[in-house]
Amino acid sequence: MSQRVITLLTDFGTQDAFVGIMKGVILNINPAVSLVDLSHGVPPQEIVAGALILHSAAAFFPPGTIHVAVVDPGVGSVRRALLIETREAFFIGPDNGLLSLAAPAETVVRIIQLTNAEYFLEKRSYTFHGRDIFAPIAAHLSLGQAPERFGPTVPTMARLTLPRVEYHETGLTGRVIYIDHFGNLITNITEADLQPFSKENLLVSISTMRIQGVVASYAAVETGAPAALINSWGMLEIAVRNGSAAHRYGISTGHPVYLTFLK
Amino acid sequence: MSQRVITLLTDFGTQDAFVGIMKGVILNINPAVSLVDLSHGVPPQEIVAGALILHSAAAFFPPGTIHVAVVDPGVGSVRRALLIETREAFFIGPDNGLLSLAAPAETVVRIIQLTNAEYFLEKRSYTFHGRDIFAPIAAHLSLGQAPERFGPTVPTMARLTLPRVEYHETGLTGRVIYIDHFGNLITNITEADLQPFSKENLLVSISTMRIQGVVASYAAVETGAPAALINSWGMLEIAVRNGSAAHRYGISTGHPVYLTFLK
Amino acid sequence: MSQRVITLLTDFGTQDAFVGIMKGVILNINPAVSLVDLSHGVPPQEIVAGALILHSAAAFFPPGTIHVAVVDPGVGSVRRALLIETREAFFIGPDNGLLSLAAPAETVVRIIQLTNAEYFLEKRSYTFHGRDIFAPIAAHLSLGQAPERFGPTVPTMARLTLPRVEYHETGLTGRVIYIDHFGNLITNITEADLQPFSKENLLVSISTMRIQGVVASYAAVETGAPAALINSWGMLEIAVRNGSAAHRYGISTGHPVYLTFLK
Repeated sequence: MSQRVITLLTDFGTQDAFVGIMKGVILNINPAVSLVDLSHGVPPQEIVAGALILHSAAAFFPPGTIHVAVVDPGVGSVRRALLIETREAFFIGPDNGLLSLAAPAETVVRIIQLTNAEYFLEKRSYTFHGRDIFAPIAAHLSLGQAPERFGPTVPTMARLTLPRVEYHETGLTGRVIYIDHFGNLITNITEADLQPFSKENLLVSISTMRIQGVVASYAAVETGAPAALINSWGMLEIAVRNGSAAHRYGISTGHPVYLTFLK
Repeated sequence: MSQRVITLLTDFGTQDAFVGIMKGVILNINPAVSLVDLSHGVPPQEIVAGALILHSAAAFFPPGTIHVAVVDPGVGSVRRALLIETREAFFIGPDNGLLSLAAPAETVVRIIQLTNAEYFLEKRSYTFHGRDIFAPIAAHLSLGQAPERFGPTVPTMARLTLPRVEYHETGLTGRVIYIDHFGNLITNITEADLQPFSKENLLVSISTMRIQGVVASYAAVETGAPAALINSWGMLEIAVRNGSAAHRYGISTGHPVYLTFLK
Repeated sequence: MSQRVITLLTDFGTQDAFVGIMKGVILNINPAVSLVDLSHGVPPQEIVAGALILHSAAAFFPPGTIHVAVVDPGVGSVRRALLIETREAFFIGPDNGLLSLAAPAETVVRIIQLTNAEYFLEKRSYTFHGRDIFAPIAAHLSLGQAPERFGPTVPTMARLTLPRVEYHETGLTGRVIYIDHFGNLITNITEADLQPFSKENLLVSISTMRIQGVVASYAAVETGAPAALINSWGMLEIAVRNGSAAHRYGISTGHPVYLTFLK
């Protein structure tokens, strides 16, 4: 069997040793695992941002990869702890929607509620299930332990609903759902939404910005000019070449984006 | 022998390649080692914060793990370079107290002063012992080299003293010793300090905050409300649910915390 | 063959999963590789800073290490994608000068233009060649694939030119070329430039700072005092002990530094 990969995504930041501690717990159980950080810069308690980041990344990992995600404002409450097996991967974390975008219903093989304390750390806290439950479960799973050992199968999980694109006679309205490190504005409008239309005859309006046409890459426009393009996630993105669209136009997540199809 | 783990904790940040360079030096000597970052976000030259982070993490790693820590304002001066062997682990770094909380006296097997230049990088600087001394020593140790090869055993090391809890007739006074990424206030008051008292009848006072009772988890209070709880380190912590207690109340490290036992 | 190392240097930051995605792509092709982050905090699109960081680090890695670097404002344009083989290592990234300081002409064995789409990700974007081209090429190379499989050999590559030191009768003029995490000012003046002169009789002037003599380490001066020293890169650096020279004196990259040789 090739080496197993465990990824970690949290809102823990990297100043404290929270993430390092989770890795210590994992390596104590399975020293041969390969650990990859997806992000520890999810804004504190922002489940939607965490879910989008996890979703953007999961498809690029080897089959059987175990993704551990902890953005967990309800830690210590009644929210359940889950292991989700999909056709391609495993997802471990709190049942608050964080895992749901990366594990759409049609890919789910089974959902296990993590209840078997035999696989948890012996001394548990009420505030750090990443260390006490999610990390050790991931490590035992990576050793080949069967998912059903960790608890009962349950029928459903919490699911996030992203804002939906609205279709009009002359175009459509979407929203900014994520802003990346470069200040690029990622919308909920997919490549498929644009399929029926000519990319040259689209007018993109957001705040005071008007962009005609969807281009292939940032480099298609001048430095400092705005561009609309299909990004590496397959979503419509609004960027400023070598600049930050978010800062320049003062735009935050949730801001509407209007697309008009010109005749 | 299972794969050896080397952890790294520094105040180097992650903008420059200082940490990557230490990893290159290590992998050049032992390519099979497993490297884990504890934190590189220790505030520059803040030895106490580094010592607390290292202490919070070390117990969760496999026996025999080698922890390299570099917060080293005295680099290039007469301060000694040390390897400390405890019953559970190895600690490598400057002799300025940084390693002392994770290696309490009763666990220490021996302290070696790193003097044998045979195991250092050939060309050494006066400003980057992380690269030139600590990284190569850690790598040679991970290959099974005996600690006594690196230098003479010495009897003592620099030790930090944290502020002590003061006991009064009606309660006790502690201090904030660390503020984490979420703005939670970690105090020097331990679970054992609270043992004799009823957790419901405690009044916690810090700045203008008054909190009655110690709860099990953040989720026990409303969003935005303050909570006192025993955290994952086993210390009394003051938090604001889904918020930052440090920002809300303008509290820094060193701030006093008063506990009053209500009748 | 010992385990291969792939390093990653980008301006992607660590909030998004861009870096994690590149690692997923690599591990999907070669699960046994050892991954090391050099920096993901290169300021967006700052090719010179990225080139300096890569240059500072490459020499410390095992022979045969594969360095992937992506600071790529021209992604999606006509700029070429390159693999550079030197006597010691491999460098993969855009042909915009980013790789040039770490791969000086006299060390270059061959330059390959990456054109063979057989080794790229199947579905490619115009905005994320780190994921689609550079990561998979690095992974295939780490498996032992011959460089010439990836495309034709080309004669030249884009090279950065750093500002040159100017020599006068009474001294020399250099520039700040990089400011590190501690606010230390790294100049383009090398140890060799200072060779002919007495280190005690040098006067270093930058902004309102006047420093007499080049010392061995930060610890040679009082806390809060400025110091000039040869740093771990072998360059003249101006620092404030336990402080930030950049913040204290308001100095940015490009600022001139004057050295006067006192009689």
